[in-house]
This record gives sequence, C-alpha cells and structure tokens, in this order.
Amino acid sequence: MVSQKKRQKIQLEADDYVKGIVHSDISVLSQAITIIESALHEHLELSNYIIDNCLEKSGNSVRVGITGVPGVGKSSFIEMLGLHLVNDLGRKVAVLAVDPTSHVSRGSILGDKVRMEQLSRHPDAFIRPSPTSGSMGGVARKTRETIILCEAAGFDTIIIETVGVGQSEISVHSMVDFFLLLMLARAGDSLQGIKRGVVEMADALAITKADGDNIKNAEIAMKEYRNALRLFPPKDSGWDPRVYKCSSLTGEGIMEIWETVLEYFDKAKNSGYLIKNRQEQAKYWMHETVLANLKDGFYNNPGVRAVINKLEQKVIKGDISSFTAAKKLIDIYLGRTN
Amino acid sequence: MVSQKKRQKIQLEADDYVKGIVHSDISVLSQAITIIESALHEHLELSNYIIDNCLEKSGNSVRVGITGVPGVGKSSFIEMLGLHLVNDLGRKVAVLAVDPTSHVSRGSILGDKVRMEQLSRHPDAFIRPSPTSGSMGGVARKTRETIILCEAAGFDTIIIETVGVGQSEISVHSMVDFFLLLMLARAGDSLQGIKRGVVEMADALAITKADGDNIKNAEIAMKEYRNALRLFPPKDSGWDPRVYKCSSLTGEGIMEIWETVLEYFDKAKNSGYLIKNRQEQAKYWMHETVLANLKDGFYNNPGVRAVINKLEQKVIKGDISSFTAAKKLIDIYLGRTN
Repeated sequence: MVSQKKRQKIQLEADDYVKGIVHSDISVLSQAITIIESALHEHLELSNYIIDNCLEKSGNSVRVGITGVPGVGKSSFIEMLGLHLVNDLGRKVAVLAVDPTSHVSRGSILGDKVRMEQLSRHPDAFIRPSPTSGSMGGVARKTRETIILCEAAGFDTIIIETVGVGQSEISVHSMVDFFLLLMLARAGDSLQGIKRGVVEMADALAITKADGDNIKNAEIAMKEYRNALRLFPPKDSGWDPRVYKCSSLTGEGIMEIWETVLEYFDKAKNSGYLIKNRQEQAKYWMHETVLANLKDGFYNNPGVRAVINKLEQKVIKGDISSFTAAKKLIDIYLGRTN
Repeated sequence: MVSQKKRQKIQLEADDYVKGIVHSDISVLSQAITIIESALHEHLELSNYIIDNCLEKSGNSVRVGITGVPGVGKSSFIEMLGLHLVNDLGRKVAVLAVDPTSHVSRGSILGDKVRMEQLSRHPDAFIRPSPTSGSMGGVARKTRETIILCEAAGFDTIIIETVGVGQSEISVHSMVDFFLLLMLARAGDSLQGIKRGVVEMADALAITKADGDNIKNAEIAMKEYRNALRLFPPKDSGWDPRVYKCSSLTGEGIMEIWETVLEYFDKAKNSGYLIKNRQEQAKYWMHETVLANLKDGFYNNPGVRAVINKLEQKVIKGDISSFTAAKKLIDIYLGRTN
C-alpha cells in the first residue's frame, strides 16, 4: 500500500503504527495522530492505511461532545468528569479538541494541559489539543480520524471539546453519540455567545458554576430551559434533552450527568439508533470529505483565483447576478473559457 | 450574448423578455420564469441574460418568507395578508413557492391557486407555484432568480411560501429580508413537525387559527414562546423576534404582523443591516451555485456512479474509513485511477 522507497528512517513501518496503536502504546498513538494531522500529501496514503487498519478495533467507546462559550468552564468540567471516570469507574478517557482558531492562538494548546493538570498526568487519560491545520472542515476531519485511532488504542470514552467557532458544533455533533452544552446561569438573560441552533442540538444542558451564591440563579435558569426545551421539536433519537446544574468546584451534578450519558447510550443501543446514527455519520464524513476536496480544487484553481474577488464584488454591487458569476467561474474551472 | 442561430420562432428575443418584464407585462414575466425554470442547458445563457438585465430594476421590494407545517393555514394566511396589501395598501404582491416535492405531488400547484382564489384573480397579485425541477438547491435557486424578475416587473412585495421539506427553510431564509413562522396553538405540546433550528431563524412567530374557542390556547402558546425565545441567542440583525396570534377567518392580527414587517424593514434599512444582509445573500447564492455545479459534476460522473454505492456500503459496514472511500472517489473523478 505505502511506497517503501522514500521512507525516512525515523518513520516507523505502517504496520508498526497499527500494531503499536492496538497495543495501546501511547507514544505510537501520538506519532500516528501527528501523521494524520500533517497536511502533507505524501502522508495521506500512510494516514489512510493506518486508519483503515484500526477500523475493526474501533467503535467500542462512548463518544461525547462538549461545547459552551469561553469562560463557561469547559476544561474544569472535563477535568472533573475525566477524573471521576478514570478513578472511580476505571474507564480510559481520551480528550480531543476541535478549535479551528488554534493555529492562530497556539497558547491554548499549552493551556489545555495546564488546566486539565491532574487528568493529563493520569495513565488512563490521553489529552490531545486541536489539530492546527487550515480550514474548519480539515480540523474536524482529522479529529474524526483521531477518534478511530484512540478507540483502537483501547480508550472507551472519547470526549470532544469544541470552542464553538464557525461550524465546529455541527462538525462535532456529527462525530459523537451524545452532545452536551454547558451554560452559565444568567437568569432571564439571553444566551450571549451561544450560536443559534446549538441549543437544539444538545442532548443535555448543564448550568455550570452552580455553587455558593450561584445555586439559586442556576436553579432559575434550569427551570427556564426545561420549559423552553419542551416547546422545541422532538429529536430523531426520541430522546428528551435533560437540564442539569453542576459545579466543578464541589463536583455536584457531574456523576449525574455521566449517568445520563450512559442511560442515553444504553437506550440508543437497544433501539438501534446508536448504530444507525454512527452509520449515517460515517456516510456524512465520506460525502463531506469529497465536498471539501471538490471545493479545495475549485477555490485553489489559478484561473478561479484570478477573478473570483472581482466577480464577487460585481455580485455585491448588483452588476451581475449570483448565477452568471457562478457560471463564469465554473466555465473557467472546467477550462471552457478563460 | 445569446446565439441567434437556433432560436425557435416562438421564442421572443432576449431583450424583448427584459422589456416586457420591466413594462410589467405579466404574460412575458410568466414566460421568462418558465425559461428560468427549464432545466435545459440551452436555456441557461438566455436565462442568465434576462436576469442580469433585470438586476438594476430589482431590489425595490420587501421580501418575506413564510413557513409552517402542513395544516397550519399558510395559504389562508397569505390570501388574507395579500388581499390586505393589494386592496388597502395599494401594494403589488408576488407570491412564490419553494416546494422540492412539487414534482412528485403536482396537485399542490392547482391547489395553491384554488386556495388563494381571490388573491390570484387580483390584477396587482401574481401567484407562481414552485418550480418542479430536481433537487432542493435547484428549486430554491430558481425561486431566488424569479424574485429578481418579479421585482423588475414592479412587484414591491415578494412573499415566498415554503413547505419546510429538506433544507428549504434555510434556502428561503437566505433569500428574504423577514422570516415568519406560522404555528398552531397546542399549549404545552411540543412542535410536532417543525424542524429543529427553524424557530431560531424566525423574525416573528404567529399562532394561527386564533378564533373562537382557540383564542385562549393561542394566548397560552404566545406567552410560552415569548418566554422561550427570550432564552435564545440574539440575532445578527439585532431584532428581537415577536410573537403574535392571528386568524385568517376574522382577520385579527394580520395587519399587526404586516406593520411589524415594515417596522423591521425600516430599522434594518436605517441600520444598514438590510443592504449588508442582501449582499451576503447574493454572495451566498454565487458560492451555493458553484457548489451545486461541482456536486452535479461529481455525482453524475460515470466512474463515480459506478462505484459510489459499493463504497458507501463498505463505509457503513466499517470495512474502509470514510476518508479512504472519499479519496478513492476523488481519484476516480480526477482520472488518477479507475
């Protein structure tokens, strides 16, 4: 599969990566993820080979997506939840992040590990910051691939944290079984910062920092969200979203939320929804990857690049219609004219 | 621009279409829309020529999208609103529909005109059923083009009705200034049939059939939705969605809703949001049309068609990853292998 010719000495054989991963060698897992994250075209075949050969060992985990605005306490929540899972329940936890801005603010990579200090040192936990390559689609795609590797390496709990920039919630929602939205209690206030549509994707909402003087406000917020969610359309899974309050200071609510995740997981497994949803997700990522490739080819086409801004301006000014501009671009792309 | 060679005798000259439209000749407008709706490739240039030459006469209308589940009373509402606009306010109203299922159930085309009987006979109203061609994207794109023609023909109010199938609300939302969601009062009940995410797109919600015994339930529903909407994130426009009740039987609420549309329109015009939003929409449709073209080219590629179902099945079974399957498909498409 993988050309042997130009392989650098330092690079392990493709099968060695696979073997290392299925033997839970964290160092090999890390290197393999780095290969996947590498945008280099020469790594693509190696990367796909590793993923394909990890596939049959994958799938045995509970995949949870967690989102919320900056300052809501995502890292503290994940640290608390993660420690509960590894210490009390004997689970193996991988925490991955999807942050399309991480190539700009590399600070957060260090930040993650510092903030999840105890969890990151635990032998049954694996924390991996967001891939830093390019587009949102690319970042999310690599995370989706990383899930497969982590599962093959024996992690039975995958937590995907996202900062909620651009389309990241939709992408993360398309790779997890359960989607948790963390929120601050600001009773009566609207959700500054939470994007429209995200509340409706959540399988559970948790009001964070429900400790001390905050408990009352958290309870008011819970009640309001329970009423509000009742008005929204039912989910395909048949699951009614739950609302909790929790504190990463006192630990309150954290166990309860995890029990809800498991309750959901069991129900979805028994109803067949879990497997159906994962199959739909696999299909989604195939088509999504195709689409990303088509778009890349188009928007990086030199002929297209030479005129697209000018055409876009003409469209904005109303000089030509969106449709004529699109036709011109497609004609250039297909070499019909120039 | 348009080749003169093979023009059928019956076909008007391209400029005659444009002239007819800007002189408000409804018969020419109808023929031009038919050309736009035609999926034939030979009509594409003519179609784009007509649109481009109507562009500078377009834009002078209030564009309103209306959605709601079947049975909510969309047609009765639009008939009542439309008659108010043409009779009392002297407006010229075009009603267009986006229904991606209309090529299946052609019955609704006749149905629309029958249900909006009085409005359809009014000289200042123009009712056009949904285009029937192919994909959702295609149907919506043609409606977006039709808006331009109707505006050039002097309609100052464009109402786009959508049945809410597939992505139709998102598409309609991307071509209007104001988005109205009609709902039935079923106090305490969840919104069976309304898709997730749609409530958050609405600039106004109206509880229909608020007459007789229903008034009380409508009022309860109004209060609940007002509370619920308060919890959702603010809109880019800065507009707080309103909740109304209305009756197409008594006419109650209809004028009030129209006044709200105008209030929104004036505010958005003054703040600059209206023009900014329309420019974004024009850009969106350029990129959307490009994307639809790229997808068409890919999914209709004979090599791709020969293997895509088999690959999709392998992905679903977990035999290969989504990413390897995507790479194989792209390689076939680009002729790298076969």
